[in-house]
Amino acid sequence: MLEASQWFTEQWTADGSAFSLKIKQKLHEEQSDFQFLEIYETEGFGNLMVIDGCVMLTSRDNFFYHEMMSHPALFTHPDPKKVWIIGGGDCGTLKEVLKHPGVEEVVQIDIDERVTRLAERYFPELCASNDDPRAQLKFIDGIKWVKDAAPDSVDLIIVDSTDPVGPAEGLFSEAFYRDCYNCLTANGMVIQQSESALYHLRLLGEMRGAMSAAGFGDLQTLFFPQCVYPSGWWSATIAGKAELSTFREQDAANKVFDTVYYNSDIHKASLAQPEFFKKAMKTQ
Amino acid sequence: MLEASQWFTEQWTADGSAFSLKIKQKLHEEQSDFQFLEIYETEGFGNLMVIDGCVMLTSRDNFFYHEMMSHPALFTHPDPKKVWIIGGGDCGTLKEVLKHPGVEEVVQIDIDERVTRLAERYFPELCASNDDPRAQLKFIDGIKWVKDAAPDSVDLIIVDSTDPVGPAEGLFSEAFYRDCYNCLTANGMVIQQSESALYHLRLLGEMRGAMSAAGFGDLQTLFFPQCVYPSGWWSATIAGKAELSTFREQDAANKVFDTVYYNSDIHKASLAQPEFFKKAMKTQ
Repeated sequence: MLEASQWFTEQWTADGSAFSLKIKQKLHEEQSDFQFLEIYETEGFGNLMVIDGCVMLTSRDNFFYHEMMSHPALFTHPDPKKVWIIGGGDCGTLKEVLKHPGVEEVVQIDIDERVTRLAERYFPELCASNDDPRAQLKFIDGIKWVKDAAPDSVDLIIVDSTDPVGPAEGLFSEAFYRDCYNCLTANGMVIQQSESALYHLRLLGEMRGAMSAAGFGDLQTLFFPQCVYPSGWWSATIAGKAELSTFREQDAANKVFDTVYYNSDIHKASLAQPEFFKKAMKTQ
Repeated sequence: MLEASQWFTEQWTADGSAFSLKIKQKLHEEQSDFQFLEIYETEGFGNLMVIDGCVMLTSRDNFFYHEMMSHPALFTHPDPKKVWIIGGGDCGTLKEVLKHPGVEEVVQIDIDERVTRLAERYFPELCASNDDPRAQLKFIDGIKWVKDAAPDSVDLIIVDSTDPVGPAEGLFSEAFYRDCYNCLTANGMVIQQSESALYHLRLLGEMRGAMSAAGFGDLQTLFFPQCVYPSGWWSATIAGKAELSTFREQDAANKVFDTVYYNSDIHKASLAQPEFFKKAMKTQ
């Protein structure tokens, strides 16, 4: 048994499983206007951020998620200049996006400023690029931001949200995807975290269905490890207005920045669809 | 906190993390001549086999491991006819190997007969092919079996073992790999589970080093999800006497049997090396 005083545990009730991290101490907790935020120092994973009881990220393994939420989409778009990040308050995705020299403007829109303030304090390495002149941080409702945006406003929208409950629920709806579609440029695309294919296959299918219904002509689901998320195996889905069949493989192979997980082979590999996933998506 | 009476928990001490499965009931436990064996019925993962406190497999997600321990190596070898499985007492790997019509003989050598007897009872789906006339089940020491074998005895050796402690420790040594090398045919190869690149990178590097030192000229490490194993992200390493640069992609694409995870795209994808892994293996 794990002593409650020594371990942070997240139960994944529907699947009867749980993941725990051994903690040295709780560094912070607060109820923000939107969510309950906790920060722990762990034994083996560096610092840990928890929102409403769910593991958001750790110092040790957030690179999988942040790299896969940014570089595949950025190297799939022919020339991404303007990027919005909806959610992403920990600034880890922002940091990765800003590694692309061609990107001229990134707006991060997270409803909860407290997430960013805590990230600055407890995950400073993720916030290292926040002062980049190309970056803007806004603490407003991302759903409304997208709804109110003018057509042709943005090349890539990265939906780096919590799970589809609470404040993030609207980010998984056809209405939201339609608003995204309307403000994207002709080659524009959305990438959104799409949960675990092992635990949340139905949700993943519904999300893809809503993206298609909103007008996106081509979808790609990417798979990657993410130790601290349910099942340890995560996904993201790119929805493109135009065809997504290739990515700028040479540019990815010759990328001018460091990564921990991502490279052009990993990009290609992430697109391989497991047999059961292919079958499930076909029968929808 | 997870009630000890309702959850089976495996702690991964070195990394300060733990994984738990909610249990309905304990179905069986025994001390065999070699190990402490437990079987549970879980809420969300079907049946669970535990050896010496470590999760071995569940009904729900063993397909990742068993498919990736068999099909990639079998489709990499030009014409595998004779296969040995060292360990693998649950018979899940055996079942996958026997799906290949070209395989003429499979010998499974697990030191602990009780593992197989429990698998027959609690994981009958994995043992469905045990009566195949091409299959032989031996309950003897696999290390000695390989040591005593004549040259040119076997095309593929699958080392489907527990972690490198206890009875499986010798299976991760240069001496064992040298014995494998000596009894393999000219195009022969070994595949062995090689733990988590996130948690056990040093071990993985040492294992690859031992394989090279034993004479294997080419190595491939494959990556795949495995929810119930430490970090949820597992690997296997193929060591080839000959070059491993390609696999029989057309044969894999036209495979005559069903899989849940594996297909030719997944095979290719599993070979992509994460950036940090490439760097770590280069500096050895």
